[in-house]
Amino acid sequence: MKLNIIPVKWADEGVAMLDQRLLPTEEKWLMLRSYNEVADGIRDMVVRGAPAIGVSAAYGVALGAKQFVGTTVADLEEELEYICEVLGATRPTAINLFWAIDRMKRTFAAGRDEGLSVSEIKQRLVDDAKAIHDEDIESQRLIAQFGGELIDNDSTVLTHCNAGALATGGVWGTALGVIRGAVDQGKIVRVIADETRPYLQGSRLTAWELLQDDIPVTLITDNMSGHMMKRGEVQAVVVGSDRIAANGDVANKIGTYMVAVLARRHGIPFYVAAPLSTIDMNCPSGDDIPIEERDRREISHMKDIQLSPDGIGISNYAFDVTPNDLVTAIITEKGIARAPYTESLKKQFEG
Amino acid sequence: MKLNIIPVKWADEGVAMLDQRLLPTEEKWLMLRSYNEVADGIRDMVVRGAPAIGVSAAYGVALGAKQFVGTTVADLEEELEYICEVLGATRPTAINLFWAIDRMKRTFAAGRDEGLSVSEIKQRLVDDAKAIHDEDIESQRLIAQFGGELIDNDSTVLTHCNAGALATGGVWGTALGVIRGAVDQGKIVRVIADETRPYLQGSRLTAWELLQDDIPVTLITDNMSGHMMKRGEVQAVVVGSDRIAANGDVANKIGTYMVAVLARRHGIPFYVAAPLSTIDMNCPSGDDIPIEERDRREISHMKDIQLSPDGIGISNYAFDVTPNDLVTAIITEKGIARAPYTESLKKQFEG
Repeated sequence: MKLNIIPVKWADEGVAMLDQRLLPTEEKWLMLRSYNEVADGIRDMVVRGAPAIGVSAAYGVALGAKQFVGTTVADLEEELEYICEVLGATRPTAINLFWAIDRMKRTFAAGRDEGLSVSEIKQRLVDDAKAIHDEDIESQRLIAQFGGELIDNDSTVLTHCNAGALATGGVWGTALGVIRGAVDQGKIVRVIADETRPYLQGSRLTAWELLQDDIPVTLITDNMSGHMMKRGEVQAVVVGSDRIAANGDVANKIGTYMVAVLARRHGIPFYVAAPLSTIDMNCPSGDDIPIEERDRREISHMKDIQLSPDGIGISNYAFDVTPNDLVTAIITEKGIARAPYTESLKKQFEG
Repeated sequence: MKLNIIPVKWADEGVAMLDQRLLPTEEKWLMLRSYNEVADGIRDMVVRGAPAIGVSAAYGVALGAKQFVGTTVADLEEELEYICEVLGATRPTAINLFWAIDRMKRTFAAGRDEGLSVSEIKQRLVDDAKAIHDEDIESQRLIAQFGGELIDNDSTVLTHCNAGALATGGVWGTALGVIRGAVDQGKIVRVIADETRPYLQGSRLTAWELLQDDIPVTLITDNMSGHMMKRGEVQAVVVGSDRIAANGDVANKIGTYMVAVLARRHGIPFYVAAPLSTIDMNCPSGDDIPIEERDRREISHMKDIQLSPDGIGISNYAFDVTPNDLVTAIITEKGIARAPYTESLKKQFEG
C-alpha cells in the first residue's frame, strides 16, 4: 500500500482539490481561490464524501476569513455568518459539513472573546481548519486499526459507493480504511465494489483507489450484490456514512439499505465505519435525517448520451437510511460500538 | 393504450427486427437476411427478452430452411441440425430459445414422417414459426388478463428490466402485460422502473414502452428500489423471467433477486409473469439453470466513455435466481400458480 491519496489541500493561493469528477481517466487538481469556489466545488461534487466535505468546508471558512478585507472583528463576524450560510447550503445530508462549520464558528467566537485582532483570528481559523484535516486523517487511522480487527484473513469484503481516502481528509478512508487496516495487519483481503449509480463512485473512485494501493478489487453493478452473496462470495460488508443518528440509524449513499437487507438475509456482518464527526447526537433517528434529491440528468444521461426517453418521471434520491437493527457494528476512532446504539454511541462521545 | 409494439416480424426478405440497442433515441428496423444474421441479432441483443428470443429463433429456423438450396429431405434435416445448433449457441439462460428450436424440430420431423416434400416442409416451418409468434401474443393477452386482476386500483407497481412487448412477440408483454391488463380493466396504475444496469433495459426500453402507451412511469436507479419501498411508494412488484424451474425458482435479469428480498421485507407481493414456454419442467431447481456471463465492457464503459480504471476485475452475471419462497405467484396464460409450485406448475401444463 502506498497510502498517499489526499483529495483536498490547503495552499497559499486557496484550496486545492483533486477533481473527482474526472477520475479514473484523468487526475487533475483544481485551485479554488475563494469560499464561493469551494462551495461550488462541494455542490458540484469536485469533492464528495462526508468527512472530505467537512474538511473542505473548514478550509472554505478559513479561506473566506483570510480574504476578508474589513478591519473590525464585528465586521468579520458578520462576513463569517454569510460565508457559513453559503457553505452550509451546498449539500444537506452530510452532517460533517455542519459539524465543521460549527466548529469554525466556535473557533472564531473563542478568538473574539479572547480579544484577538482580526489578523490573529484569521490565523486561528486557518490553523483550526488544518487541525480538523489532521484530526480527520488520524481518526481514519484509528478506524482502520479498530475495524481491521473485524475482518477475517483471506476474505472478500463488499463495499458500496466510495468511503475511501478520496471521501475523507485522506490516506486511509473510513470503509476502505477498515480494509486497509486489515491489509496493514497482514491479512489477505479482496474487495467487491458496487459501481454505485448514478454517480459511479464505486467504479470511478473505489476501484481507482484500491488499484493505487494494490488491493484486489472486482467491480459489479449495484443489482449484482445479492447474487454475489448467494454464491457465498462475500464475507463482510463495510460502508461509510453521511450521517448517523443517535439511535444508530445510518444515512449513506442510495443503495446502502438494499445491501444491508441482503447481508442480513445471508448472515453476513454489515459494518459502518465513520468518525464521530459523522454522528449527529441531535438527530434522534433516521427519520429526522434530510435526504438530498439531485438533478434528474444524473440518471437520464451519461455525459451527452441520452439513456432514457424525454417525458418520463425520474426520482434521484442521493441517500437512504439503514435502520440500526441491520447494523452489526459502527466503527469510529473511539472503537467498536454495538447495539443498543443509543447507549454505545453516547459512550463514545464521553470516552 | 396503443398496444402496437411488435419487435420482430416475418417478411419476404427475411426477419425484421426493431434494433433495441438504439432505443429510446432511435427507432430503426434491421432486416436480417439469413439464419446467421438472426443468430447474431440474438447474441448482440438487437432483440432480447425470453419470449422474443423464442419467436426470433423460430423465425431463424424457418428462414434457414427457406434458404436451403438442396433437394432431399435428408439433406434438409442435416442442414436444420446445424442451423439449430448455431441458433441454440447464442444465449444460454432463456429457455424459450431451446423451447422454440425443439418445437421447430418436431414440426420438421412430423412433416418428414408424413412424407412431405422439401418445399412443403419449408412452408410448414414458416407457418409454425408464425404460429409460435401468434400464440405468444395470445399468451401475453391472457397473462395480462389474469395478472391484471392481481393489481389494485390506484397503485404503483415496480418492475425490473424490460418484460414488455419488446421482450416478447409483442403487444402486451409479460410483466408489462400485467400492468397493461390492469389498465385495460380500468385501473389507475403507475410504474416505477429500475434502470437495470448494465444494459439499461429499464431506462431505455421499459420507460419508452410505457410512454408509448401513456402509462405514467418513474425511472430510478437499481439501488433505489429499497428506499422507494421503505417510503411506502410500491404496492406490488411484477417481473418477467428467462427460465422458471419446475419448483418455481425464477431466473431473471440480474437484480431481480434483490428486489424480491426487499419486497419480502416490506410485505409487498412479488409476481412473476411468463408464458408456459418459459417454464423448464426438466430443470428441478434454480441451481440447475445456467447463468450467462457477459463481456466486462458492458460495465467498464458506456459507449466510448470509460467508467472504471483498467486493471481491475469485473463480474458481469446477466441473470440471477430468485428462490420460490420469495415468489407470491406465477402468472401464465393458464392462470395464477401459487406455492407449492412443483404441483401448481405441473397442473398448468396438464390443464
